[in-house]
Amino acid sequence: MIMPPEWLRGYRKATFASDLLAGSVVTIMLIPQSLAYALLAGLPAEMGLYASILPLIVYALLGSSRTLSVGPVAVVSLMTAMAVGKVAEAGSADYAAAAIALAALSGIMLLVMGFLRFGFLANFLSHPVVSGFITASAFIIALGQVKHLLGVPAQGHNLPTQLSSLLMHVPDTNPITLVTGLLAIAFLVWARRGLQPLLRRAGLSQDVASILAKAGPVLLIVGTVAGSYLFHFADRGVALVGAVPRGMPSLALPPLDPGLWSQLALSALLIAIIGFVESVSVGKTLAAKRRQRIDPNQELVALGGANVASAFSGGFPVTGGFSRSVVNFDAGAQTPAASILAAAGIALAALFLTPLLYYLPNATLAATIIVAVSSLVDLDLVRRAWRYSISDFTAICTTIVATLMLGIELGVLTGILVSVLLHLYKTTRPHIAVVGAVAGTEHYRNVERHSVITHPNLVSLRIDESLYFANASYLEDYIYQWVAANDSIEHVILQCTAVNEIDMSALEALEAIDHRLREQGITLNLSEVKGPVMDALKSVDFIQRLSGRVFLSHHQAVKALKTDEIEPYII
Amino acid sequence: MIMPPEWLRGYRKATFASDLLAGSVVTIMLIPQSLAYALLAGLPAEMGLYASILPLIVYALLGSSRTLSVGPVAVVSLMTAMAVGKVAEAGSADYAAAAIALAALSGIMLLVMGFLRFGFLANFLSHPVVSGFITASAFIIALGQVKHLLGVPAQGHNLPTQLSSLLMHVPDTNPITLVTGLLAIAFLVWARRGLQPLLRRAGLSQDVASILAKAGPVLLIVGTVAGSYLFHFADRGVALVGAVPRGMPSLALPPLDPGLWSQLALSALLIAIIGFVESVSVGKTLAAKRRQRIDPNQELVALGGANVASAFSGGFPVTGGFSRSVVNFDAGAQTPAASILAAAGIALAALFLTPLLYYLPNATLAATIIVAVSSLVDLDLVRRAWRYSISDFTAICTTIVATLMLGIELGVLTGILVSVLLHLYKTTRPHIAVVGAVAGTEHYRNVERHSVITHPNLVSLRIDESLYFANASYLEDYIYQWVAANDSIEHVILQCTAVNEIDMSALEALEAIDHRLREQGITLNLSEVKGPVMDALKSVDFIQRLSGRVFLSHHQAVKALKTDEIEPYII
Repeated sequence: MIMPPEWLRGYRKATFASDLLAGSVVTIMLIPQSLAYALLAGLPAEMGLYASILPLIVYALLGSSRTLSVGPVAVVSLMTAMAVGKVAEAGSADYAAAAIALAALSGIMLLVMGFLRFGFLANFLSHPVVSGFITASAFIIALGQVKHLLGVPAQGHNLPTQLSSLLMHVPDTNPITLVTGLLAIAFLVWARRGLQPLLRRAGLSQDVASILAKAGPVLLIVGTVAGSYLFHFADRGVALVGAVPRGMPSLALPPLDPGLWSQLALSALLIAIIGFVESVSVGKTLAAKRRQRIDPNQELVALGGANVASAFSGGFPVTGGFSRSVVNFDAGAQTPAASILAAAGIALAALFLTPLLYYLPNATLAATIIVAVSSLVDLDLVRRAWRYSISDFTAICTTIVATLMLGIELGVLTGILVSVLLHLYKTTRPHIAVVGAVAGTEHYRNVERHSVITHPNLVSLRIDESLYFANASYLEDYIYQWVAANDSIEHVILQCTAVNEIDMSALEALEAIDHRLREQGITLNLSEVKGPVMDALKSVDFIQRLSGRVFLSHHQAVKALKTDEIEPYII
Repeated sequence: MIMPPEWLRGYRKATFASDLLAGSVVTIMLIPQSLAYALLAGLPAEMGLYASILPLIVYALLGSSRTLSVGPVAVVSLMTAMAVGKVAEAGSADYAAAAIALAALSGIMLLVMGFLRFGFLANFLSHPVVSGFITASAFIIALGQVKHLLGVPAQGHNLPTQLSSLLMHVPDTNPITLVTGLLAIAFLVWARRGLQPLLRRAGLSQDVASILAKAGPVLLIVGTVAGSYLFHFADRGVALVGAVPRGMPSLALPPLDPGLWSQLALSALLIAIIGFVESVSVGKTLAAKRRQRIDPNQELVALGGANVASAFSGGFPVTGGFSRSVVNFDAGAQTPAASILAAAGIALAALFLTPLLYYLPNATLAATIIVAVSSLVDLDLVRRAWRYSISDFTAICTTIVATLMLGIELGVLTGILVSVLLHLYKTTRPHIAVVGAVAGTEHYRNVERHSVITHPNLVSLRIDESLYFANASYLEDYIYQWVAANDSIEHVILQCTAVNEIDMSALEALEAIDHRLREQGITLNLSEVKGPVMDALKSVDFIQRLSGRVFLSHHQAVKALKTDEIEPYII
């Protein structure tokens, strides 16, 4: 990580051209987004800009993705608001300080996870849980912005509290604010589709048009700033962004208050993991399109560095954002240089544009947020899960409901817990199939699904699961019941094709089964035992003490043990 | 459960004779044990007797085990001391009340779990965790009794605190107490082996001798009571049991204080689960010897009833004990009537023997406990686990260390957590084997373990694990790397013999893999897909959109896709 990244060596002029273009497009997009997400996190607007300068540069140098664009994102900003709101008064200096500490803390956690190569941890966030969580968060975020559209104070970080608080304040709605906000939303929605054709008709080339079209949010800001200035919104009770300090962020040590850090620890961990998972999924998607690969552990380090950088430059938690990365990619970014150029763009904005933001209505930013998060909602997945598997469906719905009702932190924790428990529960009742030979072949199939040959003096059981503590006793009961119900049985053959592990509890269960069957004059045999499992069983003399034998193939086992046959019956 | 249990109908005189004998033997054994475990739980001696009357009867009527003997047991008594110690002052009336409430609470939890048929929950306590936990608890229990041997006050519920507290008090040791205690231990250890032969030589028959030999602890009590009376232990600063109220327990409602109950909830749950698991494992062992079966869910109900009964009759949490059940079994108990007779025996003791206990030194009971729990230590299992599997070994050691260092509640929770995480971690890196055909057969085996035939234009990958969110991305990376390293590949065949489930995250991974391979002109094929998995894949048109095909057998897949062969190479 000390040596210059491989993209930097042999960096070419042509590459620079396209990187510069992508960089400028992203800048145009980042300015409003950064301001908006600062608002969402309950922080002063300039912190949004600060979080979009140094972090981009650090990620560009450390990251394994070529086109990922890092910065404040909706979900993480909301999580920041949640976490910081618990320890400090909104709007206070402590509040901003806590946000900075949060960035430092989650950054350090990411770095540690990276050095420990804990990238795999992200695997425990199943896709249903993540998308359910993000969908629910989008609702909460959008609903949280409604108060800025109405121009009323309102609290709440979950559906019920938000709604009740909003309804209470509806009477105090400021009409001008509301109109501004609604017009802003209307414009943004239109700009997504309508702006580009318009520019084409204005005679611009396809490329230029498609790039300028991305400036919609900026045009909106310019327009509303002008409007709010001309029509004296300030005197009409419209909430404005107000004075935004001009200039670059000053580098400073984040607050090192142990009490504060311990209070923020859990939230920081959640932000680190959620941010990491969101960022990696974006990075993977883009990398796949250009046959590039990203290294999760390297990503942990890069995101960790970006967050620490954010903390040292007065920013708040950042991660790889979906929309901006896609824009960066589509605008033709070839290397992380594009992000460095974007960072420079934001820096210029921080230096020269902030005065213009004085008249910017909060409603404009709220509109920007609402339109941005609307694309995060993915209800189609719920429908898909319903068709595909009941347990995935349960996981999604639990996550969505828990997030909406309990807030995002408890929401995602519930989601993870439920998905893991569902998986474990499934393995406690392993699928065990009675199998027989497909006539004329050496293949054995489930007697309930195929017409196969079986034998009265033996039973072939295919165990479709690894055997471990959670399902060992189930196997025991299953075999005892089967044997009790069939007195002609002389041999039990367990086809272990699907048994990838036999842990100690399961080993003891097998020993108990073997002992019990032996008393009843029945032998226990194994077939198609995997190499690693066989090694383990031999290490404790289980094979040597087994009443029956171990066969390489199930067919050999049946040939060796069968007496007469039962012809296949057609189901 | 309302109708009389099946053993009661057609109950015979011969059966009664053996039940009566077993009942009396168990009574002789239960009296000292009940007193000792009450002491261990920090409760007045009589509560030990109370906990050994009604619960036995209730279990006899509800239980599915014929010979399980229910009552106070070492580990659960220690857990009771732990739990109650948190909410009340040792020795106070509140303390006893809390213990009663604890019995009621865990009893109700067991009943609820039973009615919900949650017996499977016990499966998540792997055998390594349980035995590691019990071994460590035995140490803590024995060490906790040393203070009674020394006759000093000492606290601590985990190794470090116990040791430091003991060492601090060593100077205050009461010599007479110490001598009594050590003699008691010596006698009990000798009695286990030496008493029976002695009685035989005294001319008693084998049966009578073996039964009377079990009276060792009672003889010890009689002996030490006499000694303490004759040599005025009371005046010599030896701690005695003291006045034990005479008579039967009075039935009373357990304290119904919501605050108290919520404080005890977690401990009650742990006691319920640990007690259940201990009891069921004993019950299973004994039932197996006589070809009887026990029903876990029925056991939940029976143990729940027993604990509620204990609470209503002034007792504390109870469960099926190992040593006493074995004694009951060996003494020839045929039906639960034996336990009912034992209960009657204890009742008589409560009515007439309690005055004699006044002079009983606590050291005697401490000796009884130490000798009793010494049989719970199972270090051989640690050795066995070391040989068998590193993860089981880790689970045992973590549980033992955590229990010794953090105390038993955190200890067992840590054990459960670690064993589950270890299992999940294993599944995140599934074993994937490159397989080839065993010459002249249709069997495919790992190329690293067997000399097999492979083909340059295709790769056969056998996935030895169900595919779900935790390992989906691993498979993706594995295949991409494999393909990147072998340019001659035209077909990838996944042998799904061991894939018992493909959840939605894994499905998306497969779709991504298929898409990516297609771009590289490679087809993705599946073979030997299980019925249920196939159904799920079809439900979302995955099979229809797959670049390759799905084959019934892996051999067919290879036959269809291979070009020329590579002869097996011998390793």
